[in-house]
Amino acid sequence: MTQPDSLHYLGVRDAIATRIAGGELKPGERLPSERQLQVGGGVARGTIREALFQLEAEGIIYRKDRSGWYVSPPPVVYDPTRWEGFMSYVEAQGRRPETETLSKTEIACTPALAPIFGRPVGAPMYRIRRRRSVDGRAVLVETIVVDAALAPDLLSHPLDGSLTSVLKSAYNIAVARNRVDMQPCALTRGEAEALQVKSGLPGLNVVRTSYDAQGRVVEFDREYWRHDALKISVDIRVR
Amino acid sequence: MTQPDSLHYLGVRDAIATRIAGGELKPGERLPSERQLQVGGGVARGTIREALFQLEAEGIIYRKDRSGWYVSPPPVVYDPTRWEGFMSYVEAQGRRPETETLSKTEIACTPALAPIFGRPVGAPMYRIRRRRSVDGRAVLVETIVVDAALAPDLLSHPLDGSLTSVLKSAYNIAVARNRVDMQPCALTRGEAEALQVKSGLPGLNVVRTSYDAQGRVVEFDREYWRHDALKISVDIRVR
Repeated sequence: MTQPDSLHYLGVRDAIATRIAGGELKPGERLPSERQLQVGGGVARGTIREALFQLEAEGIIYRKDRSGWYVSPPPVVYDPTRWEGFMSYVEAQGRRPETETLSKTEIACTPALAPIFGRPVGAPMYRIRRRRSVDGRAVLVETIVVDAALAPDLLSHPLDGSLTSVLKSAYNIAVARNRVDMQPCALTRGEAEALQVKSGLPGLNVVRTSYDAQGRVVEFDREYWRHDALKISVDIRVR
Repeated sequence: MTQPDSLHYLGVRDAIATRIAGGELKPGERLPSERQLQVGGGVARGTIREALFQLEAEGIIYRKDRSGWYVSPPPVVYDPTRWEGFMSYVEAQGRRPETETLSKTEIACTPALAPIFGRPVGAPMYRIRRRRSVDGRAVLVETIVVDAALAPDLLSHPLDGSLTSVLKSAYNIAVARNRVDMQPCALTRGEAEALQVKSGLPGLNVVRTSYDAQGRVVEFDREYWRHDALKISVDIRVR
């Protein structure tokens, strides 16, 4: 915790970050082993490891299973003021989006959901759990709840794309308003396992409530993102 | 990692969360000790601890020094589409904002800053490090860089409030555009120490670039927030 030690691991961090920024190590590429990094600079194993943790915290590198450290792909950029879903903004950035349905069930409206939907506890709801990927890497898991009264038989439709599109085409339900709440979090066991990351890694919890023109809640969606997979970006000008 | 164990710690989590949501344990209040929580329900110490880590990850409780667990105060809500600074939106939410200057120095423009400001490497810049609090709890540390050519002698002004106001009143510089980029991160040693939290805790990295009407960068600000202190909220309607 002394100052020289602190400077030391930041120096190693900068050396690795420069190799990545300069393109010597490319997104998705595996880093040299800790031992190889150590031999290069003649620094202590603990200092190397601290530099790697720092780079992981910044989202520049990530761990995969037990096979080592990899250079992070660039994050997808998400602008919450734009009217676009995951499948379209990811594709617009030249990346490959995928959606996988993990489970779909009919549930009874819980005390927590009742005030959100303005429906009685016990009313039938659909709950859909999905995992979404960018270029084959899982980036988020989400749980979506839809009022069964608004979209009867929803679960028989294909759910591996844009749910908003399904609601529009099959039920003529149009989203007129989106409220998006985002809070950084630590990924805990359930989400971490679904994303194949270590539990405790930072993440982003995104809650999206979508309303139709009559003010009815048509989708209630809670997403957990891995922290290095997205960047929220908003650009505003004075009116 | 088995299913029953998983259900067990989530049950303990729910029991504590219910006491907090019901107002039995209030924001800022200290939680009963792990031992007391254990005696209450007859569950293993490890299970109690896992439930506490889960609640910390959700931002519901937090650790203070070595003195135990406390109920988190509600997060401040930040809407990046609104034209408001920290001092004013925190106060508008009935909370008490404070800004403390940690350091202020003249620096030479670095290779990383040069393209942001459109200024040569070595040009004089001001760098201001500040810590901001809500109701006496440190919530963010930030590093602001300002081009010294635009605001000569800036460091002699009071910097413990809104810097945007100082630029306006003392230099007639008005911000016309803000670009805000946000990414979840892990707080590493430097920021964690300034915020008095454990290194590795999740945080939010907010980078704000402010431009005047001529497109010149007038403020470049990098903030690190503790994860339970803010909620980003955006509400949009279809056009």
